[in-house]
Amino acid sequence: MKIWNKEEIIAKFDIDRATNLIEKGFVAYSKKAVLVPPVQNFYFKTANGDCCIKSAYVEGSENFAVKVSAGFYNNSSIGLPSNSGLVMIFSAKTGLPVALLKDEGWLTGVRTAIAGQLVARILAPRVVKGIGVIGTGDQARLQLEYLKSVTTCREVHVWGPDAQQGERFVTVMTAQGFTVHLHKSPEPVARNANLIVTATPSREALLKSEWISAGTHITAVGADSQGKQELDPQIVARAGVIVVDSIEQCSKYGEVSHAVDAGLIQLDMLKELGNVLSQGGRARDDVNEMQITIADLTGVAVQDAQIAESVVS
Amino acid sequence: MKIWNKEEIIAKFDIDRATNLIEKGFVAYSKKAVLVPPVQNFYFKTANGDCCIKSAYVEGSENFAVKVSAGFYNNSSIGLPSNSGLVMIFSAKTGLPVALLKDEGWLTGVRTAIAGQLVARILAPRVVKGIGVIGTGDQARLQLEYLKSVTTCREVHVWGPDAQQGERFVTVMTAQGFTVHLHKSPEPVARNANLIVTATPSREALLKSEWISAGTHITAVGADSQGKQELDPQIVARAGVIVVDSIEQCSKYGEVSHAVDAGLIQLDMLKELGNVLSQGGRARDDVNEMQITIADLTGVAVQDAQIAESVVS
Repeated sequence: MKIWNKEEIIAKFDIDRATNLIEKGFVAYSKKAVLVPPVQNFYFKTANGDCCIKSAYVEGSENFAVKVSAGFYNNSSIGLPSNSGLVMIFSAKTGLPVALLKDEGWLTGVRTAIAGQLVARILAPRVVKGIGVIGTGDQARLQLEYLKSVTTCREVHVWGPDAQQGERFVTVMTAQGFTVHLHKSPEPVARNANLIVTATPSREALLKSEWISAGTHITAVGADSQGKQELDPQIVARAGVIVVDSIEQCSKYGEVSHAVDAGLIQLDMLKELGNVLSQGGRARDDVNEMQITIADLTGVAVQDAQIAESVVS
Repeated sequence: MKIWNKEEIIAKFDIDRATNLIEKGFVAYSKKAVLVPPVQNFYFKTANGDCCIKSAYVEGSENFAVKVSAGFYNNSSIGLPSNSGLVMIFSAKTGLPVALLKDEGWLTGVRTAIAGQLVARILAPRVVKGIGVIGTGDQARLQLEYLKSVTTCREVHVWGPDAQQGERFVTVMTAQGFTVHLHKSPEPVARNANLIVTATPSREALLKSEWISAGTHITAVGADSQGKQELDPQIVARAGVIVVDSIEQCSKYGEVSHAVDAGLIQLDMLKELGNVLSQGGRARDDVNEMQITIADLTGVAVQDAQIAESVVS
């Protein structure tokens, strides 16, 4: 069992190889060629933390993967990172452990940003006037970074629940070539953007429907377990296209679940990312400039299996 | 993150401490004071293997545990152990990994045998005429070893699907002071015993009801996931007492599920081990010498969390 630390993982990491494997993973998942047991979730109310365990086996592969990722949102107050985690790889031939990737949550962050990039490629408006970011943590920064290859827009409006993190976000993303406007509330972010990413651990809607302009695309990545929510379900109801990473997961939790529970949308509205990717081309109606589109990303274990495989194989 | 290998784990291991913590764990589990997400299962048909991921957090504890255990039943043909696995411990305060126990499945074996011992204490007949063992693998041996403190009987009848393993079982258990009769089929095992343990990965019933004498207790530990079965459901239907480690799990898989699915028993027949242990005393009607009793052990993640905690804390 080879043990990889974060530095070794980053040194070996190849973004193109990872993106390619993750895209293939989504396609295999939607073709039901991936074994994905239901996600295990823990919620630690007192510690303001959560943890999820995601496992996947892409049929025919040498290995299967088990990923543990945690978000403990008071950690920054004691100088620890909010997100942590590791990935284990086991042989699908013998069951023996093959590798432990002590990535400290790095792979989870990257595979989530890669999914954000994949959906933005097929759903972002042709002309992006402003990018809106809800959240100022590591994932919010990564999502924005991964949008660089999707749009030429560098105008960014951002709000996050943590003021100190906001300043850091501005510094880091300005250094990456963005013009960043830090706002004191989510409303101006939404009003100034037609490509929005939400990446917070919120347990209530942060974006109201009346702030969202026609023609906007929103990628929501925060609501990855029961009880989490970032969008007013009315926004989901207004969407002309809803792409989800997993119909099974998103109908149970994720943004879509809140709209389904409220009777605002039907499950047959949902398009699964792997199916959309396998068809090729755009998922948005580029003629209809009024169309609102949503991507609801809860995170599927096949992403973890594929990004880990991209490192160890 | 401290990494423990198997030798270090065994050196630190204290059976009394582990048994005590596992008993407390079962009690807490039945009091709903343990977070136990549904078990994740993989079944690798071609490789004749399975893998389960069990996670648990005993409320108020410092840590939570994630256990991966695999059984690949063709491994012995290439000189590898059938069972493998590891346990990870994470802080419930920060989410950070605390320890990796590379126990190679050793802890799973022992915690399963401890559960067998706990149920035998409260359910084994007062006078054991013969011990029957179905299965000749590591777990079958461990179960028998852990019965030594429960009964003075040393007459053992055994059958297992693997003939070579059978010879080894006889050698090892004879050295431990048992008189072992190796049979060519399960029937004489059942006919010569009134305390029976089944510990195979069978996917069909191995014991028929007509072979089981009145007054017998059976502990079934093999059926730990969907599709596995060792007992004729009619045996379960005949039982006057059925103790299960988890009503939730055993009603879905385990021996009990087959009897429930066939409409032979009602769920209100089931007594959960933690509740029985917290009441103290015997779970069998010692006056009624005809009573058949069953313990159905599917393995609960709280056992893994507690045995791991007994090592690292």
